[in-house]
Amino acid sequence: MTILDGKKISNQIKDEIATEVSRMKERGEKVPHLAAVIVGNDGASLTYVGSKVRACERVGFESTLIRLPNTTSEVELLKTIKDLNENDDIDGFIVQLPLPPQIDTQQVLMAIDADKDVDGFHPTNFGKMALDMSTFIPATPFGILELLDRYSVETKGKHTVVIGRSHIVGRPMSILMGRKGFPGNSTVTLTHSHTKNITQITSQADIIISALGVPNFLKAEMVKDDAVIIDVGISRVPDDTKEKGYCICGDVDFENVSKKASYITPVPGGVGPMTIAMLLKNTLLARERHRANNK
Amino acid sequence: MTILDGKKISNQIKDEIATEVSRMKERGEKVPHLAAVIVGNDGASLTYVGSKVRACERVGFESTLIRLPNTTSEVELLKTIKDLNENDDIDGFIVQLPLPPQIDTQQVLMAIDADKDVDGFHPTNFGKMALDMSTFIPATPFGILELLDRYSVETKGKHTVVIGRSHIVGRPMSILMGRKGFPGNSTVTLTHSHTKNITQITSQADIIISALGVPNFLKAEMVKDDAVIIDVGISRVPDDTKEKGYCICGDVDFENVSKKASYITPVPGGVGPMTIAMLLKNTLLARERHRANNK
Repeated sequence: MTILDGKKISNQIKDEIATEVSRMKERGEKVPHLAAVIVGNDGASLTYVGSKVRACERVGFESTLIRLPNTTSEVELLKTIKDLNENDDIDGFIVQLPLPPQIDTQQVLMAIDADKDVDGFHPTNFGKMALDMSTFIPATPFGILELLDRYSVETKGKHTVVIGRSHIVGRPMSILMGRKGFPGNSTVTLTHSHTKNITQITSQADIIISALGVPNFLKAEMVKDDAVIIDVGISRVPDDTKEKGYCICGDVDFENVSKKASYITPVPGGVGPMTIAMLLKNTLLARERHRANNK
Repeated sequence: MTILDGKKISNQIKDEIATEVSRMKERGEKVPHLAAVIVGNDGASLTYVGSKVRACERVGFESTLIRLPNTTSEVELLKTIKDLNENDDIDGFIVQLPLPPQIDTQQVLMAIDADKDVDGFHPTNFGKMALDMSTFIPATPFGILELLDRYSVETKGKHTVVIGRSHIVGRPMSILMGRKGFPGNSTVTLTHSHTKNITQITSQADIIISALGVPNFLKAEMVKDDAVIIDVGISRVPDDTKEKGYCICGDVDFENVSKKASYITPVPGGVGPMTIAMLLKNTLLARERHRANNK
């Protein structure tokens, strides 16, 4: 059994990006600039955004954090997005989700210039992904592809079962694993809340990607020998033995499933760290595209 | 066993659209106007486009057929598309595929105004579909949804197996059947040329949608009792007993599979006729959206 070590791989990727940024500086080129917009004071969101800004600093990117109050109107947020779209110094930006209820998330995501949409959530980018065109792939699915790639996990002709059909993980993952190329060329089954006989389906899978958010959902008896297990779940579970009073738990019963798996991602330290690394990679890509357009 | 009669249902839909167009005329409103662009002299393409123009006439739409020579350059075709984009009288238009080799199909599809893209092939529309937003659904998948809807075929919690991952049928179908709502909420498996043990997979399916283009591919032993069978294949097979010297053959061994199926589409007369009906429906939708925008 091999651990798919997202922490290690994400550090490798960040080192590679930092090297590339150093070269850009040596050549006197503008370095990538990521902006992040956060509305309100949600603790988890502030933590995520803070991690993204620190990751930018680590690799040598410029970064801008725009904090707006929880009472921000949709019109005000759209104005901020318009400014970022038109600001040639910004290569890519993200709007941290979730947004407060007075703001229509769909309208906001639609307003982002697709060429700066490094989260890959804009319909144009999502459609390009589904139609095998070059685009920004959403960071979490992109990170999973990268893990499979760096560990040379065979995907062609394998049966991949994806659990959960969210727009940011399950659905794009199901599309990506069935595309031509590597990683890809899998036979893909997408399962969700209406799926019957989930055990019957997962127990046939060569690769399981679980993005459900239910702690310890995937048990050993649901998995066949030598399966590849990708755990995207991140749940806080009360745990008095921890200083914080909780532990971070994945969808997978790691202790037992890992005994049967050929490859498995831990939680934490698996898919999670890859997400930020791939956001940086998308921002680097955005910079390269903007340079090609003389911006 | 019930035949999913695409010919009958498509005629119903055309009648419904014709009634709606009559009401538009009575109210003194502009009627929908579809334009079709065809490059070259491919016989099958001319036949398809001709059917689309006749269907427009039947329901009372205006239609414009633009025929360009086989030697048309990409720049010339893009100019034609730009004119159609800017022509307020045109509500929607299609560019008949395939295009001659000197033209990059992707560039052409990208150039079509997404609001006039009644084929639903533009990445923005494809992405909206995958993200559960309102859009133009590609006509063939849309027609399959409509057949399932009109015959009240249960899809929720059923296991749907899609055979073939083309951009115009297999991939969108796999996405649509897994979306929330009806028809949808299926557990969906997308299979393709790299899929192993296809029989093992199809024999577990409650619903099979085959878009492979291999005559008589799906045999009775690959199908479980009471399965729903949707045959998207259209192949010409030499047949001396026919006046034309060939017959139109689907992917499904209809004679034997129909004995096990609960519902099945014939070929011809199943999915085929639905495609044009749904193109008209998308054009009507385009007209309604343009009216809402005062165009």
